[in-house]
Amino acid sequence: MNGQTLHLGIAGLGTVGAGVVRLLRENAQAITARAGRTIEVVAVSARDRTRDRGVDLAGLTWHDDPIALASDPKVDVVLELIGGAEGSARTLVETALKAGKPVVTANKALLAIHGAALATLARENNTSLLFEASVAGGIPAIKLVREGLAADNLVRVGGILNGTCNYILTAMRESGRDFGDILAEAQALGYAEADPSTDVDGWDAAHKLAILAGLAFGQPVRFDSLHVEGIRNIAACDQAFAREMGYRIKLLGSARRDEQGAIEASMRPCMVPQSAPIANVDGVFNAVLTEGAFSGPMLIEGRGAGAGPTASAVMADVIDLARGTALPVWGMDPRPEIACAPRENLAGQYYLRLFVQDRPGVVADITAALRDYGVSLRALSQHAAEEAGKAASSQTVVPLALVTHETSEAAMLSVLTALEPLETVVGTPLLMKIETV
Amino acid sequence: MNGQTLHLGIAGLGTVGAGVVRLLRENAQAITARAGRTIEVVAVSARDRTRDRGVDLAGLTWHDDPIALASDPKVDVVLELIGGAEGSARTLVETALKAGKPVVTANKALLAIHGAALATLARENNTSLLFEASVAGGIPAIKLVREGLAADNLVRVGGILNGTCNYILTAMRESGRDFGDILAEAQALGYAEADPSTDVDGWDAAHKLAILAGLAFGQPVRFDSLHVEGIRNIAACDQAFAREMGYRIKLLGSARRDEQGAIEASMRPCMVPQSAPIANVDGVFNAVLTEGAFSGPMLIEGRGAGAGPTASAVMADVIDLARGTALPVWGMDPRPEIACAPRENLAGQYYLRLFVQDRPGVVADITAALRDYGVSLRALSQHAAEEAGKAASSQTVVPLALVTHETSEAAMLSVLTALEPLETVVGTPLLMKIETV
Repeated sequence: MNGQTLHLGIAGLGTVGAGVVRLLRENAQAITARAGRTIEVVAVSARDRTRDRGVDLAGLTWHDDPIALASDPKVDVVLELIGGAEGSARTLVETALKAGKPVVTANKALLAIHGAALATLARENNTSLLFEASVAGGIPAIKLVREGLAADNLVRVGGILNGTCNYILTAMRESGRDFGDILAEAQALGYAEADPSTDVDGWDAAHKLAILAGLAFGQPVRFDSLHVEGIRNIAACDQAFAREMGYRIKLLGSARRDEQGAIEASMRPCMVPQSAPIANVDGVFNAVLTEGAFSGPMLIEGRGAGAGPTASAVMADVIDLARGTALPVWGMDPRPEIACAPRENLAGQYYLRLFVQDRPGVVADITAALRDYGVSLRALSQHAAEEAGKAASSQTVVPLALVTHETSEAAMLSVLTALEPLETVVGTPLLMKIETV
Repeated sequence: MNGQTLHLGIAGLGTVGAGVVRLLRENAQAITARAGRTIEVVAVSARDRTRDRGVDLAGLTWHDDPIALASDPKVDVVLELIGGAEGSARTLVETALKAGKPVVTANKALLAIHGAALATLARENNTSLLFEASVAGGIPAIKLVREGLAADNLVRVGGILNGTCNYILTAMRESGRDFGDILAEAQALGYAEADPSTDVDGWDAAHKLAILAGLAFGQPVRFDSLHVEGIRNIAACDQAFAREMGYRIKLLGSARRDEQGAIEASMRPCMVPQSAPIANVDGVFNAVLTEGAFSGPMLIEGRGAGAGPTASAVMADVIDLARGTALPVWGMDPRPEIACAPRENLAGQYYLRLFVQDRPGVVADITAALRDYGVSLRALSQHAAEEAGKAASSQTVVPLALVTHETSEAAMLSVLTALEPLETVVGTPLLMKIETV
């Protein structure tokens, strides 16, 4: 096929799909030089034929059913830009791979949940499935981990993988305002969806972490074994405590492999030291961090979403296909999924914030629970009632923050259970890991 | 060749060469899985057979003459880890390529100065020349720019590319001490060479910038057309002025391409805003920054030198060779070298520091020179004599810092010429560009 024009079929003409068409036209000359052949869009599929997408689609074959792209003989490569782990996105990818047709996708949910099966399907049909755009937008995170660090023994991979959450946490820190306020503002600005749960509950970021972990460790990670927490429970007082203690709050993904090969992976709000490079990745920016036995620590930051960055990543994959340098999904022959170790196995320092009734003996009850589970206290801070905001409405309730020395997550979960019956502890406690990135 | 063992010959067994042997042995299983075949060192060459390098070399063929690796029929791939733009490193690489044997090198000077000719040689002999380890140690900068951002139109590439200089500048900032002091300390700690000129005069970093620019713009850049300045003239007072004005001083490489295709490239000490991510890349760490029309700004930081990171980069190239995914040197078919625009074409805000005699009228003379060349002053700061350190020995001399509004570098060079005859200006002025990265 080398030397001949490579023909693309694009399913999904949202901002990313339209961005791919625009990128390909604006940079046609350079892309041809790098790919060693011309690349052209020949067919598209989207729901609404009449919508103005800001790009000229004249002359392209229009398929109402995206699955038809897989069997269109004019299409050499299918670009799946529909999204979602199931439905027509999944069917299209499976149909194309079964037909021996390479697929490029930006679909993180599909890869995180069905990546093991899709890798096998691609291998059986001797074709390729590429997904650079699925993680961290324009940042070539897949290529970095799978190829750039291919020789190293990676012990950790992770990062800030959701721009909406990072925007909200940054704005909360800078303004002192509550989660709900900032979310509403982000929705008005278009930084958050009308239904924000995929973002703010951590699922989008967790999908990306699962993909990075699979690449770093050469083996797909069972998605439902990841520990996932979102940012809804972060209160304004947590940002104040974090500042006072020299930390920042980030929705941080972290996957580690120990010497026995066990994998720990979580996507959760964490405290990170203010001076850590990742603490200064703010707003909608994403960052991917790696730690290798030989390469040491590395951090790459850039735009994690948007039409331009995502189109750049999609087309980098297409160029790899055109050059014939596409790699297997997980960087090696398919291997079975591996489940992560249970959350209880994690260890570290923890931040525990409680809303408590402001009366004598409360702290004694709480510290007794810590003692009972062998958790050693490093710092304690209690703010006055007026700082507690809404939680202080009907009775005098104040926020109390505790920071522990190194302990196990199992012990912290036992402490939480022990605190449940206490009438003096109000509402839901917030437990955050302190990461020394 | 796929499926068969890939046999390596290593020329140069310094810390990097020994690191490659160690990495290959420690990570053998993962490397085989990723490469799709086993990889083995079969032959080596170095000056001293008897030195203990901490790795077992028993059973390997020893060549006293490195060039012999190119003709050893057991060797499939030559690893050139000798260094230097000329001499046996260059001869070995040319001989191997002429024999159709792929080469992996960590040699930045060779690529920066002879990259255009070597790309043609590799192409003519239908073989590969890979050099991931030549730029920024363990950071996969080559792969990032050449493949990860292959589809984008890069308008800028650069970064902090010399760990020795970044260590010295960081230590000067933190301690308030002079360049000479810190250099001596860095030499004692092994962070600087006995002859530090390749590092502190900017050449090593400039070689790396030339390579990055060639990759970003798809065309080798003529090395002697880069503007290169080192860090010897940075004084303790410059660090004090920078802090006072909200900046940090970094030896920063920057290559930009304008819409007409002209390239501006310089490696020089610059002022960067304290809040910029690159301002916080400290100590021996390196960082590579890119800016793409589609991908936006991106920054990757990590260890820029050392046995482990460099070995990781060398072996990532070897895995690409083993997989058959190696690309042409500049990411496309060889193109002729392009010269950078002259330094005078640069524009921006500038920092100008002078040592001046502390008497009336001095500032008037200097600001008159700025006015004569249309340079508008944004800020001026003069420190008292006791802050000027050594320069204040025989007469009362004080440091004076001026910051301009946007102007051309041509105008600033004219100002420098106009200041030369002034008796009140003592010693060598320091001109730094202010980069708003």
